[in-house]
Amino acid sequence: MPNKIPVGILGATGIVGQRFIQLLEHHRWFEVAWMAASDRSEGKPYAEAARWRLKTSIPKNVAKMVVAPAKPDGAPKIIFAALDSGIAAELEPRFAEAGHAVITNSSALRMVKDVPLVIPEVNPDHVKLIECQSYRRKNGGFVVTNPNCSAIGLVLALKPLHEKFELETVMAVTMQAVSGAGYPGVASLDILGNVIPYISKEEEKMEEETQKLLGKLNGAGIIPAPFKMSAQCNRVAVEDGHTESISIKLKKKASAEEILEAWSSFRAIPQEKKLPTAPEIPVRYVNASDRPQPRFDVDFGHGMTTTVGRLRPCNVLDWKFTVLSHNTIRGAAGAALLNAELLKEEGYLD
Amino acid sequence: MPNKIPVGILGATGIVGQRFIQLLEHHRWFEVAWMAASDRSEGKPYAEAARWRLKTSIPKNVAKMVVAPAKPDGAPKIIFAALDSGIAAELEPRFAEAGHAVITNSSALRMVKDVPLVIPEVNPDHVKLIECQSYRRKNGGFVVTNPNCSAIGLVLALKPLHEKFELETVMAVTMQAVSGAGYPGVASLDILGNVIPYISKEEEKMEEETQKLLGKLNGAGIIPAPFKMSAQCNRVAVEDGHTESISIKLKKKASAEEILEAWSSFRAIPQEKKLPTAPEIPVRYVNASDRPQPRFDVDFGHGMTTTVGRLRPCNVLDWKFTVLSHNTIRGAAGAALLNAELLKEEGYLD
Amino acid sequence: MPNKIPVGILGATGIVGQRFIQLLEHHRWFEVAWMAASDRSEGKPYAEAARWRLKTSIPKNVAKMVVAPAKPDGAPKIIFAALDSGIAAELEPRFAEAGHAVITNSSALRMVKDVPLVIPEVNPDHVKLIECQSYRRKNGGFVVTNPNCSAIGLVLALKPLHEKFELETVMAVTMQAVSGAGYPGVASLDILGNVIPYISKEEEKMEEETQKLLGKLNGAGIIPAPFKMSAQCNRVAVEDGHTESISIKLKKKASAEEILEAWSSFRAIPQEKKLPTAPEIPVRYVNASDRPQPRFDVDFGHGMTTTVGRLRPCNVLDWKFTVLSHNTIRGAAGAALLNAELLKEEGYLD
Amino acid sequence: MPNKIPVGILGATGIVGQRFIQLLEHHRWFEVAWMAASDRSEGKPYAEAARWRLKTSIPKNVAKMVVAPAKPDGAPKIIFAALDSGIAAELEPRFAEAGHAVITNSSALRMVKDVPLVIPEVNPDHVKLIECQSYRRKNGGFVVTNPNCSAIGLVLALKPLHEKFELETVMAVTMQAVSGAGYPGVASLDILGNVIPYISKEEEKMEEETQKLLGKLNGAGIIPAPFKMSAQCNRVAVEDGHTESISIKLKKKASAEEILEAWSSFRAIPQEKKLPTAPEIPVRYVNASDRPQPRFDVDFGHGMTTTVGRLRPCNVLDWKFTVLSHNTIRGAAGAALLNAELLKEEGYLD
Repeated sequence: MPNKIPVGILGATGIVGQRFIQLLEHHRWFEVAWMAASDRSEGKPYAEAARWRLKTSIPKNVAKMVVAPAKPDGAPKIIFAALDSGIAAELEPRFAEAGHAVITNSSALRMVKDVPLVIPEVNPDHVKLIECQSYRRKNGGFVVTNPNCSAIGLVLALKPLHEKFELETVMAVTMQAVSGAGYPGVASLDILGNVIPYISKEEEKMEEETQKLLGKLNGAGIIPAPFKMSAQCNRVAVEDGHTESISIKLKKKASAEEILEAWSSFRAIPQEKKLPTAPEIPVRYVNASDRPQPRFDVDFGHGMTTTVGRLRPCNVLDWKFTVLSHNTIRGAAGAALLNAELLKEEGYLD
Repeated sequence: MPNKIPVGILGATGIVGQRFIQLLEHHRWFEVAWMAASDRSEGKPYAEAARWRLKTSIPKNVAKMVVAPAKPDGAPKIIFAALDSGIAAELEPRFAEAGHAVITNSSALRMVKDVPLVIPEVNPDHVKLIECQSYRRKNGGFVVTNPNCSAIGLVLALKPLHEKFELETVMAVTMQAVSGAGYPGVASLDILGNVIPYISKEEEKMEEETQKLLGKLNGAGIIPAPFKMSAQCNRVAVEDGHTESISIKLKKKASAEEILEAWSSFRAIPQEKKLPTAPEIPVRYVNASDRPQPRFDVDFGHGMTTTVGRLRPCNVLDWKFTVLSHNTIRGAAGAALLNAELLKEEGYLD
Repeated sequence: MPNKIPVGILGATGIVGQRFIQLLEHHRWFEVAWMAASDRSEGKPYAEAARWRLKTSIPKNVAKMVVAPAKPDGAPKIIFAALDSGIAAELEPRFAEAGHAVITNSSALRMVKDVPLVIPEVNPDHVKLIECQSYRRKNGGFVVTNPNCSAIGLVLALKPLHEKFELETVMAVTMQAVSGAGYPGVASLDILGNVIPYISKEEEKMEEETQKLLGKLNGAGIIPAPFKMSAQCNRVAVEDGHTESISIKLKKKASAEEILEAWSSFRAIPQEKKLPTAPEIPVRYVNASDRPQPRFDVDFGHGMTTTVGRLRPCNVLDWKFTVLSHNTIRGAAGAALLNAELLKEEGYLD
Repeated sequence: MPNKIPVGILGATGIVGQRFIQLLEHHRWFEVAWMAASDRSEGKPYAEAARWRLKTSIPKNVAKMVVAPAKPDGAPKIIFAALDSGIAAELEPRFAEAGHAVITNSSALRMVKDVPLVIPEVNPDHVKLIECQSYRRKNGGFVVTNPNCSAIGLVLALKPLHEKFELETVMAVTMQAVSGAGYPGVASLDILGNVIPYISKEEEKMEEETQKLLGKLNGAGIIPAPFKMSAQCNRVAVEDGHTESISIKLKKKASAEEILEAWSSFRAIPQEKKLPTAPEIPVRYVNASDRPQPRFDVDFGHGMTTTVGRLRPCNVLDWKFTVLSHNTIRGAAGAALLNAELLKEEGYLD
């Protein structure tokens, strides 16, 4: 333990904050050394401040850790953030300003021009935008973001296809798990036996983040990928795991075999460098008529693998398929953690 | 009661058979006078043969009715059918052959050239195909079908748009209720907290039925509507009500106002003739950001109204919206019943 | 309408407040003329202030009604209250003090010595306690309460047995619906696929209220019924309807037939006087091995009937059975409404 | 692997059969070498015959194993059985007759006089009944059973109390998971948003098995424990994990501390001998007001630990508490496996 790198967590008591703590419990490189949450939690031991909602227990050392004020003083250099968007917009720049590496799951700064929005398997080169941030130039601090939970699984499935065949059009309809709304989040009266065909700002995020993630780094900004993209987002009575029905059109026509081959052969920096949180297989195709399903597939690759299934021709575009991704692991805390590992590998955390 | 027209039900013990009985309990024109089901049920009083799954009670007269053998002898002229596809393919022609008017919810004969596939608000003229059926010419019998539960709500929503603006492309992703699979149907272990991205043959049915329903009668057959259509079908943990995320492209460009106006002004024969099962409003637009939802909207118009919501521009096609329809009322028993009412109105049941 | 008695609702935006509005929409005697809720809602039209969660629509006149400050000035004489316990303890006396008849579903004052806790079919004579209240003597105001949603269904089932055979022991284990916790209430992450074996203060309320309800009026107070009572309360993933597994011991031994007869013959003042909200059958026994079930039985008698089933001998006490009752109708708004009707019938609202 | 003992599975394709295969995948002593199921499955590779419903994958060697006819010829000496009761009554004696050690989860023979009904932590001495079985005397074969999934968790919680304070009365109300009914088992239409207050024969099994398990070996039979026991069994919308609300009366009065101490200090042969499937802690008390819950506690001790919570005084008997146990691991396949390990330890499998 003495050799591990201390990290802090902003927003440690929420669902994503809890996932950070869970995923960091036995992490090879990092250890939780500091945490902050809302004023209500400040000064309390974590076990008392948080309403722990995960199936594993609170790590013992974390349980006793006292929740600090949400201020940069005394916080470790590396900060994972899982804040509500409004607060994030205020606190994240403040920590970066103070020289911290802020690796955040919040949506607040994702679309800011010089803020990298990164999936290590997809666009690791975008981290170079860090150098354009004023914080960085001043005192080394910076902000790096990961995408929305509905975008990340999809983009992992699209990346190998975009690389080889170039996307022309993407249509996505999601069926998203309740944990995506945090805790208490979705009221049981709203979702038991029901579908809610709306999640605030989700469709916009999904559309623009997908294009930024698959876009090209161009000096101090990103040129979004030029394909057309349309998303419809629904909430369903599932605990963890966003399921998505996707249709795509490709510029260069591809056979089913070529698409399956693109997915199965897809490996990237996290796999090559064997980053601690990287799944062995980033995109898995499951060859069964009725999969992927949250019940069976959400935890594959410790929740870091995107599972794809049901590839078949589309009468309107070229291909249809179903994507499943764990929304609070690959779609939130695990995404930020892998970003941190990439940043460390690339020397940004030294 | 003495003046009501006696009708029979084939497949009376299943979920759709039960809906027929429920909807016929206080029907203005028809009354249940005969019923048949599987061999296992034959000879038993209905209350004993059926595992009743609806919230209202079994009508008293029906409870005591004895389940007859599934043979034409002794059956009333008008037969509602709710059989599994395999058995339907065998029994429905047999009843039509024997001179019965078979009004069926089964999928077996829907795509047969001279069998009308009808939604009274959408393509009432297609019933003329009856005259091309050999049964009809021989002894007056015929078969009329209604569409799949996933197609009917969508087609009701599309009809006013197709009429005015002509559809060029339709993309549909469904989130379908478990009652669509009958009883026992979907195992609880399969669907609790889960999504199943597959329903056997559903996507094919939805695609080809939509095109036949919006197609043109041409002598002894139907020319399918020429728009492109692609469907993806999912099962979710909802009791009743199929929710669908739709995108469309129109030949003649239309504004949001024009589309809303097309829906709100849509009325057809069932409304004009005030058919007993016709909803006052066939297509209702609900003006709220998070609707329609099964919980709130599925029973509107006694389960016969299609509810539409969330009309907004689509980045890929022209417009996106959500459709909700009751799958065992408008999507099954109510559909057949309204077909029977149309047929009576047009003189086919005299 | 002009002849209807105006009533007010305190706490009109919550789940129980919504039920009040729904049940009063077509009420024969009363009409909603005033409403108050939290400061946040004050001054807004109801449709905007409330997040309406019921399947029927907001009554049109109510939708536009502006939420008043929660103060007695300008409020009608009759006030229905559906407030959180803490606020109720403060506001209810204030309204009674000002001369209002406060008919409340809140738990705050239920166990106060001179406050009647009433089910009209069970202990209508307890309303006489009103005369002991200081408010009443001062200016005619008073407070009348109805029991907790978990107690009321049980007490209705127990009353006919206690009357004839005298209860010696009652053991109850509940499986309670999420609507009992209000809105947003139970988080979906807490209850999807889960059971929570705890509801704050519920067991205590259920035990002491049952004994007060079946107790005897004695001057200015109630002598609780002397039987022993033990309750265990669980939350399950059901929308509406509390199911309870009950065991009882009787002083005077009774056969199954005698018990069934006691239930089926049970009628009381609300039935005799045909009070508007009274169910025809207050306690219904359903003769099926696997009933009552929320899905099938919760709405019987417009949600005002308690359904009992599975009467069978108990190896430890005398008899076991299952009770089901609608928790937000008979267990909350409908209970208060029936209390108001009893009070009107008895002249307390003149 | 070459040193592992080959075992066979009767009823390998059902939910419990699948759990056997899952739990045996990395077992220290045993390995699956043979399997049989219904005629329909015979001759097919397991992966094709079974509709696998567990979250882990089918072990590779098992996937290819061909399902054998359900006959003793060629089957290994040790047979785990997970058959429907009717078939079990026929097949289990046939295998024992042929010299096999039949370790079964089926209920068929549990209450037969010379058949041990065993929980290794509770009544390991009962296995001696084996010697009274005619099969055993003839050719070494025998049958050993484990209890019903609703009884086993409760009996584990009761054992330490019965040992120290002697039970006088036990009242149990269960809220049982759908996996207890096998696959397809409970229809989703029956349980979504619902409670079913009935499970066929479950209450009788729970009552008589509890008394046999805690009874005394007396020559060729068991004298049931003399306490009174009453059970009420309900089905709820939970995937895995039976939750039970329990009240007990003790002959020797005990304080809460003494009861907690009895639970926490409870260890038995499986723990002492470190049997492969034995949980370190057979009975765990969780000190939180709202636990145990299936979501958080069902997998503790790899699903072999019974979790108890909410110990508090009962107004009628002495104490109330909640018990949770994994119904297809500790309540089925894991129970039989631990029985096999006990039998091996005691030399019955040599």
